[in-house]
Amino acid sequence: MTDRVSNSVTVLGLGLMGRALARAFLKAGHPTTVWNRTASKTDALVADGAHRAESIVDALRAGTLVVVCVSDYAAIHQALDPHVEHLDGRLLVNLTSGDSRLARETAAWANNHGAHYLDGAIMAVPPAIGTAEAVILHSGPQSDFESHEATLSALGTVSHLGADHGLASLYDVAGLAMMWSVLNAWLQGTAMLRTAGVNAATYAPFAQQIANVVAEWLPRYAEQVDSGSFPAEVSSLETDIAAMEHLLAESQAAGVSTELPRLIKTIADRAVAAGRGREQYPVLIEEFSRSSRP
Amino acid sequence: MTDRVSNSVTVLGLGLMGRALARAFLKAGHPTTVWNRTASKTDALVADGAHRAESIVDALRAGTLVVVCVSDYAAIHQALDPHVEHLDGRLLVNLTSGDSRLARETAAWANNHGAHYLDGAIMAVPPAIGTAEAVILHSGPQSDFESHEATLSALGTVSHLGADHGLASLYDVAGLAMMWSVLNAWLQGTAMLRTAGVNAATYAPFAQQIANVVAEWLPRYAEQVDSGSFPAEVSSLETDIAAMEHLLAESQAAGVSTELPRLIKTIADRAVAAGRGREQYPVLIEEFSRSSRP
Ligand SMILES: NC(=O)c1ccc[n+]([C@@H]2O[C@H](COP(=O)([O-])OP(=O)(O)OC[C@H]3O[C@@H](n4cnc5c(N)ncnc54)[C@H](OP(=O)(O)O)[C@@H]3O)[C@@H](O)[C@H]2O)c1
Ligand SMILES: NC(=O)c1ccc[n+]([C@@H]2O[C@H](COP(=O)([O-])OP(=O)(O)OC[C@H]3O[C@@H](n4cnc5c(N)ncnc54)[C@H](OP(=O)(O)O)[C@@H]3O)[C@@H](O)[C@H]2O)c1
Repeated sequence: MTDRVSNSVTVLGLGLMGRALARAFLKAGHPTTVWNRTASKTDALVADGAHRAESIVDALRAGTLVVVCVSDYAAIHQALDPHVEHLDGRLLVNLTSGDSRLARETAAWANNHGAHYLDGAIMAVPPAIGTAEAVILHSGPQSDFESHEATLSALGTVSHLGADHGLASLYDVAGLAMMWSVLNAWLQGTAMLRTAGVNAATYAPFAQQIANVVAEWLPRYAEQVDSGSFPAEVSSLETDIAAMEHLLAESQAAGVSTELPRLIKTIADRAVAAGRGREQYPVLIEEFSRSSRP
Repeated sequence: MTDRVSNSVTVLGLGLMGRALARAFLKAGHPTTVWNRTASKTDALVADGAHRAESIVDALRAGTLVVVCVSDYAAIHQALDPHVEHLDGRLLVNLTSGDSRLARETAAWANNHGAHYLDGAIMAVPPAIGTAEAVILHSGPQSDFESHEATLSALGTVSHLGADHGLASLYDVAGLAMMWSVLNAWLQGTAMLRTAGVNAATYAPFAQQIANVVAEWLPRYAEQVDSGSFPAEVSSLETDIAAMEHLLAESQAAGVSTELPRLIKTIADRAVAAGRGREQYPVLIEEFSRSSRP
C-alpha cells in the first residue's frame, strides 16, 4: 500500500471542493477515478482525463486510495453504507467537514469494515487547491498518511497531526478561532481609527505587523503553559489590565463597539480575582480551560 | 530646530521606562540631561555620562528636545505647571501613557505656552528600548517629528502617524487589542487541543502560522472596508457561521470555555440578521463601528 505500487486515486463527491480535488490529482498526473451522486458533474473531469466510475462500487474497486468529500457525514453513510464490503483494504481519506467526535466514530466504522482511515480538514477554498496555500490537515495512523503522502501532496500543503482521528477537526476549528480573532481585532482597531479620520488601508499594515510580532511569542509562551509556571518576565496581568481599561475607555469615547474590549478585560479580571495578577498572560490558560456555564 | 544644530536631549522622569530612554540616548552619543522628582534616581545615569539638572527649570533650559515619561498626565502637570514659562521654544515629546483626549488637551496646553508637542506611545518594555524591537509611535505636526527623528531613533523603531495628537494613543490600544486577541485565540485553541493530549508547544507553531496568513489578508480586506463594498470573493458570512457553530460545539464538547467562540458567533449572527449573510467578513466593520449599550 505505497505510492510506488499504485498512485491512482478515487474521488467520491464532486461538489465545488471535490471537483477541485480531482482536478489537482489529474494535474499532478495521478490516474483519477471519479464518482458523484449526480453523474453529470463528472463530465468536465472526464474531458480532462478522469476515469468515470459507473457506480460507487466501481469507484471503490478502482484503487486503494479513496478520497471522499461530500456535504457532511450523513451523506458519507448514505452513499457508502450499502456497499461497506467494498471498503476492505482501502484507505479512506475523508475530507468532509465535521467534528472530532464524528471523525472518531467514522474511523471506527471504517476500521470495522477492514478499511484504513484518515480524517482530514481542508483549510482552503476550492481555487487554492493544488497550490501550497491550501493547508490540508490529516489525522489517524501515521503509517497510513505516510504511505500516500506523495499522492495527497498534489492537493496542497498536507500535514499529519497525530494518531487521534479527532485532531484534524480540532486543529481546524482552533485555526478558525485564530482567523476570526485576528479579523475581529483588526476591525475593532479600524473602527476606532476611522473615528479619527484614519482609513482602513492606512491602519491595516500596522495591525498586520502587530499580529506577526505577537504570533512569534507563542512558542515561548507555550513553554509557560506546558510547565504550568507563569513568571512575569516582561509584564504582569495587573499591568495588562490597566491597559485594557484604556482600550475600553477609548472604544467608549470613540463611540464604537466595546464587546471585544470587554471580553478581553472580563477574562483577565477573573484571573486577577483568582490571585493571578502578578503572573504573565499565558496564566489565562486556566480561564480558557474552564467550562463556561451554558 | 534640527538635529544638525543640536542633538542634545533632556529626559524628565526616571522611572523604569525613563531610565531606559535616557540610557538609549546616551548610548547613541546624544548629550543627555536628566531630571527626576526623586533625585537619587539620577545617580547611575550620571555615572554613565548623563548631565544632572539641579532643577526642572535647569532641565528645560538644557536644550530644545525634552522627552517626558512619568506615571501619568497628572504627574506631568504637577511637575511642569509651576514652570510653564520655560516651555517656550521647546519640543515636548510626551511618552507617558494616556488616552487620545488627554493627548489632544496636553498638546493645546503646550502650544499655549509656546512649545511644540508630540504625543507618543511606547509599545515595548524597558529592556527593549534602544533596539529595533521597541516600537515607538508619535503623533502631532510632521515637521516637529522630522526635525528630531534622528535623535528619537535612538529609542527604537520610531514612526509618525499623523498630525492628530490623539493618534498615538489610538494606535497603541488598537495594537493591544490585536495582541490580546491573538493570545486569546491561541489560548482557546491550546485549551481545546490539550483535551486531546496535544501540548501547547506542539500547537503553537500552527497557531502562529494561521495568524501570519490571516494578517496578510488585512490590506486587501481594508480595501473592502474603505470602499464600503463587501463581495464574497472567497467566502460568505453564512458559510463562516456554519463553521463558527463547529467551533462552539467543539469547545463545548471539550469542556473548555465558550466565551470567545460565542462572541465571535454573536457578532456575525447580528450581521446576518441585518441581511449581510451573502457578503464577506469585513462587512462586520458595521457591527464594530456601532456603539455598544453600556
Ligand atoms: N467549498 C469550500 O470552500 C470548502 C472549504 C473547506 C471545506 N469544505 C468542505 O468540503 C465538503 C464539500 O463541500 P463543497 O463545497 O464541495 O459542497 P457542495 O458543492 O455543496 O457539494 C456537495 C457534494 O456532496 C454530495 N452529496 C450530498 N449529499 C449526498 C448524498 N446523500 N450522497 C452522495 N453524495 C452527496 C453532492 O452530490 P450531488 O452533486 O449529487 O448533490 C456534492 O458532490 C463540505 O464538508 C465542506 O464543508 C468546503
Ligand atoms: N514600564 C513599562 O513596561 C512601560 C511600557 C510602556 C509604557 N510605559 C509608560 O511609561 C510611563 C512611565 O512608566 P514607568 O514604568 O517608568 O513607571 P515608574 O517606574 O513607576 O516611574 C514613574 C515615574 O514618574 C515619576 N512621577 C510620578 N509622579 C510624579 C510627579 N507628581 N511629579 C514628577 N514625577 C512624578 C516618578 O518619579 P519618582 O521617582 O520621584 O517617584 C518616576 O520617575 C507610564 O506612563 C507607563 O505607562 C511603561
